[in-house]
Amino acid sequence: MADLSTTLPLTRDSVVAAHEVVKPHIHKTPVLTNRTLTELASTPRDLRGTQWEGREPARPVLRLWFKCENLQRIGAFKARGAFHAIERLKLEPGWLEGGGKEKGVVTHSSGNHAQALALAAKESGIKAHIVMPEISNPLKIAATRGYGANVIFSGSTSVEREAMADKVIAETGARLVPPYDHPDIMLGQGTLGLELQQQARDLIADEAQHSFRAPKTISSGSGRENKGLDAIITPCGGGGMLSGVALSCEGTGIKVFGAEPSFQGADDGKRGYESGTRVTAVSSLTIADGLRTPVGAHPWKVIYERRLVSGFYSVTDDEIKAAMKLVFERFKLVVEPSACVGLAVALFDEDFRSMVEREGGEAGWDLGIVFSGGNVGLGAVGKLFEA
Amino acid sequence: MADLSTTLPLTRDSVVAAHEVVKPHIHKTPVLTNRTLTELASTPRDLRGTQWEGREPARPVLRLWFKCENLQRIGAFKARGAFHAIERLKLEPGWLEGGGKEKGVVTHSSGNHAQALALAAKESGIKAHIVMPEISNPLKIAATRGYGANVIFSGSTSVEREAMADKVIAETGARLVPPYDHPDIMLGQGTLGLELQQQARDLIADEAQHSFRAPKTISSGSGRENKGLDAIITPCGGGGMLSGVALSCEGTGIKVFGAEPSFQGADDGKRGYESGTRVTAVSSLTIADGLRTPVGAHPWKVIYERRLVSGFYSVTDDEIKAAMKLVFERFKLVVEPSACVGLAVALFDEDFRSMVEREGGEAGWDLGIVFSGGNVGLGAVGKLFEA
Repeated sequence: MADLSTTLPLTRDSVVAAHEVVKPHIHKTPVLTNRTLTELASTPRDLRGTQWEGREPARPVLRLWFKCENLQRIGAFKARGAFHAIERLKLEPGWLEGGGKEKGVVTHSSGNHAQALALAAKESGIKAHIVMPEISNPLKIAATRGYGANVIFSGSTSVEREAMADKVIAETGARLVPPYDHPDIMLGQGTLGLELQQQARDLIADEAQHSFRAPKTISSGSGRENKGLDAIITPCGGGGMLSGVALSCEGTGIKVFGAEPSFQGADDGKRGYESGTRVTAVSSLTIADGLRTPVGAHPWKVIYERRLVSGFYSVTDDEIKAAMKLVFERFKLVVEPSACVGLAVALFDEDFRSMVEREGGEAGWDLGIVFSGGNVGLGAVGKLFEA
Repeated sequence: MADLSTTLPLTRDSVVAAHEVVKPHIHKTPVLTNRTLTELASTPRDLRGTQWEGREPARPVLRLWFKCENLQRIGAFKARGAFHAIERLKLEPGWLEGGGKEKGVVTHSSGNHAQALALAAKESGIKAHIVMPEISNPLKIAATRGYGANVIFSGSTSVEREAMADKVIAETGARLVPPYDHPDIMLGQGTLGLELQQQARDLIADEAQHSFRAPKTISSGSGRENKGLDAIITPCGGGGMLSGVALSCEGTGIKVFGAEPSFQGADDGKRGYESGTRVTAVSSLTIADGLRTPVGAHPWKVIYERRLVSGFYSVTDDEIKAAMKLVFERFKLVVEPSACVGLAVALFDEDFRSMVEREGGEAGWDLGIVFSGGNVGLGAVGKLFEA
């Protein structure tokens, strides 16, 4: 990872600069809509049997715009940060000249970041060492090797994995590329926010032409302007994507929210944000396995200290599964559980829905939701939903 | 269904006219690419253990562009034909004045056409009667009712279903809207071909800017023009979509091919095309359940008599399943088995691949592939791929 002294400042302009750098390497993933889900989100829930029983159901008006990073290269947004990190590393004075490509890069991850880094390194002819727990899914090991990486096994605790990464660094001179806690990664992930803003604006304009609806956001004969999205909600694990998207929205008036699983304390971002102190350890086996990590120190500065994120919401594993089933059967998209938390909040969290009703009023909100990834096998899906 | 005397001529211009009519009612579905699948299609197969064993593997160069009608309203391209049929019916002299909306429309289908017609009728305030076999999937019955249709049960043979539809017509004066064998339906389905042509051209131009590749099709400094797609392959059941897409390509130089399952003679289009005589009955339980029907008489005229289709290819059910798994796990899209036959041909059919090698040469082909629908439940997917 490039030395911190060489990184760009954490601003929207830097996200724009990062986008120019990563654009040739990534897919401009589509932004899609789905009437069934938009209608469901805009229908008051039956709250019987839920934790909100007895409350008057919220009546938010929501139009949902989905940024499909499950269709990104390697099947997740992580490709953006990895390509950006590699390109910035190549620009670090002396790194290439010092044999950086041969020394390579290293990370400890069993998830999407491992595959993203392996791919990004390969396309620049840089060696990649990936430390993975011995117990990792054989499919993920094979996929990472498929991108040409050197897979090194370790124990499964974070201490064991970090020790192994340190050993690799000592032996090879490889540079560590962490999965989220670095400005280069945050700026790279933030590029999806820029695309989403523009794509949603174009689609809203397009819809106005076809006169499906004429809400406040539509440019029409009345001369009102198309102001695009009102808000974006993204999953939050380590906070790389959430902070990057928040930076991409700075100064635009678009609010940004984080979504988390609540199971076994995986809602560390929410707890930290509400208490004012970052939670630094999480031990949860939520099905949203990409979100089992605490928010990193660099993302925290953007999310909390600069208040570029307006709030956090959390959902149960059952709610995540229900959202995933809807996406699969009604939207025809394969998404991993971690990718469904934002939608689950919009559909099921009465606190979020009341807030939208209050702030959006009759005109409602155009809400961007990030589907962060789709790396889940047919076998795992079958298991998740059997009887 | 509008009287045949009122339908538009079967020309590309009529497809353009149909597009203007259906545009406000349908999604302009995205055209997506996938490097893994494009690379796989352009890699010679290992033919050991296949029916081609001993042959020199074909070396086609294929760039694949997928038209995602699984993301269409009701989850399949059938929405296009149904909306077009309804709009044309409303234009038929005397139909509205004669109480057409109240008399309604009727069809006998347990599949995507039933839902498509129910939806299109509902949005025009027209009654829809849908004859379905009693043994139909309860989810499909519920979905069809969800669109406000009157579901009427019948026995499961086509004779029983048609008798019931006739009874409904006699009792209500409803107009029959068949699933494929009518010019209005064909022209409606063909609109996806128009979109695919333009979207692929735009994407190819976009790719040229990012200089991923510079094949023959790319407009570049050399002054060669972006000529868009070389060919399109679509699934063929009754032939409504295949013939419509063929019409949309007439005069463009884009070749059109049909893809079918071979199981238990479901390759009736291929057999008919090669023998010169339309096959009028099919009895197959291929997993591609949307393709168990013989090609209709109207589509046949376009496909065979006018030779607007260049040929047919067929694949086994195992090849369809293998393609479906790839789409699910590598492309992150939910597609039904019937939607995968075109991709299966491109990946697995050595006759097709040899033809592309021969005709496309080193520059290769830009091939449009239609993902026709995504209506398959999580339970059914689990069953299909268990053990």
